[in-house]
Amino acid sequence: MNQQLTNKQILLATRPVGMPTEQNFEFKEIPVAEAQDGQVVVRTLYLSVDPYMRGRMSDAKSYIPPYNLNEVIVGGIVGEIVESNSDLFKAGDKVIGMLGWQLYNTVDAMTLRQIDESIAPVSAYLSVLGLTGLTAYFGLLDIGQPKEGETVVVSGAAGSVGMFVGQIAKIMGARVVGIAGTNEKCDYLKNELGFDAAINYKTTDNIGAALEQACPNGVDVYFDNVGGEISDAVMNLLNDYARIPLCGAISSYNRTDGDMGPRILTKMIKTRSLMKGFVLGDYADRQLEGLQELGKWLSEGKLKYEETIVDGFDNAIDAFLQLFQGANIGKMLVKVSDAEK
Amino acid sequence: MNQQLTNKQILLATRPVGMPTEQNFEFKEIPVAEAQDGQVVVRTLYLSVDPYMRGRMSDAKSYIPPYNLNEVIVGGIVGEIVESNSDLFKAGDKVIGMLGWQLYNTVDAMTLRQIDESIAPVSAYLSVLGLTGLTAYFGLLDIGQPKEGETVVVSGAAGSVGMFVGQIAKIMGARVVGIAGTNEKCDYLKNELGFDAAINYKTTDNIGAALEQACPNGVDVYFDNVGGEISDAVMNLLNDYARIPLCGAISSYNRTDGDMGPRILTKMIKTRSLMKGFVLGDYADRQLEGLQELGKWLSEGKLKYEETIVDGFDNAIDAFLQLFQGANIGKMLVKVSDAEK
Repeated sequence: MNQQLTNKQILLATRPVGMPTEQNFEFKEIPVAEAQDGQVVVRTLYLSVDPYMRGRMSDAKSYIPPYNLNEVIVGGIVGEIVESNSDLFKAGDKVIGMLGWQLYNTVDAMTLRQIDESIAPVSAYLSVLGLTGLTAYFGLLDIGQPKEGETVVVSGAAGSVGMFVGQIAKIMGARVVGIAGTNEKCDYLKNELGFDAAINYKTTDNIGAALEQACPNGVDVYFDNVGGEISDAVMNLLNDYARIPLCGAISSYNRTDGDMGPRILTKMIKTRSLMKGFVLGDYADRQLEGLQELGKWLSEGKLKYEETIVDGFDNAIDAFLQLFQGANIGKMLVKVSDAEK
Repeated sequence: MNQQLTNKQILLATRPVGMPTEQNFEFKEIPVAEAQDGQVVVRTLYLSVDPYMRGRMSDAKSYIPPYNLNEVIVGGIVGEIVESNSDLFKAGDKVIGMLGWQLYNTVDAMTLRQIDESIAPVSAYLSVLGLTGLTAYFGLLDIGQPKEGETVVVSGAAGSVGMFVGQIAKIMGARVVGIAGTNEKCDYLKNELGFDAAINYKTTDNIGAALEQACPNGVDVYFDNVGGEISDAVMNLLNDYARIPLCGAISSYNRTDGDMGPRILTKMIKTRSLMKGFVLGDYADRQLEGLQELGKWLSEGKLKYEETIVDGFDNAIDAFLQLFQGANIGKMLVKVSDAEK
């Protein structure tokens, strides 16, 4: 191992209030740590930027602990082993793990999972064969439970989770309506992913009326990635015994105004609907099942995916911030380096 | 049967907007209809006034159809058979059914269920051994699923459903906190029903702080009968994997202002909580199980109940309106007449 290799890291410098800015982060250069017994050095190929990471930047109670100040941001990363002091991996192996936002991670080999490039390109393990594909799979099928002929509405539909939710709902035989923020995204949902309808919430004057038109039989499943006014509108169309998997509320993450809206309890009672927040970790014991199904649908051509790739480690923060502008179609990734082997 | 008997009915004259008034209702006198083959005449002993009936007075879509204008209000009634043209019942039998708000109902005997006065007084079949006891039983145990040592909060705690929710939660070994609207109710909850704490939301300046004090380990189950600001406050204390059976939202039923409040989706996600609206009809196939358990607890002295009885058929509308002022401790009933036998 070349001890002269310089590592570059992104640290959380201050906790954002409202929308994060570049000033909340800090770049730092240090030497790459040597791999001890059982450890490996992983060169970052792609890093994943995800809305949930905004939550970890605050110190409010949540399902995962907050990032510490002046420590490296941690997220999903695929990388290549460049040095190994472990029997588990050899140089050149491709791996995925929850790793630091840095050019190189020196970690215990046990914390990594090997990925198989013969099934899909390495970046796919950060989307369809990774956290976002699994999140869509479990949230939709376990909580949403769409049945043939039912109507499934998904918000953030062209995002990293939403694009799989809609496609899996189609596989289950449901009518699928996506809500997204550009015409390009809506066209993609309808023309590429086979959604039955797509609504551009930014150009639609009356989202309630547009939803009513797109959902003539009401809404049986609402898979929510965004929260806020869009969710308010969908709630008005719930059918009896509707199911609402709550995956994300990206519209609320940077709000500092209290996030007020119509109370939904009466609607929930009148329709006897079920709403449940969830995170992928709730399904830790079923990940293999999910990956197998997703892999099968992928190989059968039933599941497509899209990536928005931002090039260069130095642009990672910008890529993260762009999530909240809805700049991505499909999974937003940062390409840090090319594989050597 | 004395054909000279005069019936008195309460009809829905106009649909209320906001809080109902006496003017929305009309009294009418007509002769009592004769019992045809298979029919019986039931003299009303007690009629049940319940918040859900407010929903049926509007014509909005809900889980039961609205009352028709100029027709008799229908609700839970216990009565005594005074004439029978059916093998099912004889004069003097006590029965329960969904019947019209009138002194006498002439109905098919098949629509009635006989009640056993040796187990409990007839009025109990409109509360602990009736709709409200069963509603508490299924909502709490099926959706709430309280475990030993968990904290259960119930709003409308001294009401017809809430008083059973808290007691059943105690039977399950939970810490129980009730929210009610008078000191008398709070004392009743703590001293008579064994609640661990009770909060008078009308005299408490800061309901959030009072809840935090009463729930040092957070909230695992929130059984909601009221909605509105009280529910907003409880939502801030949800533990991970909290369960929220939505039974009623009495604070919202007469609102005409849009019922705005803090959006709860982010909290639901962060805690991976489950919220579900339900009505007793969802558990139609399990009513026998529920009645058996409730009867057992009642006979063992583990379940107490209270009734607020308004005397006289002419006061039925007033009793109904008083529900929304929180005038009742326990089940609000109208006593229409004494049993003959």
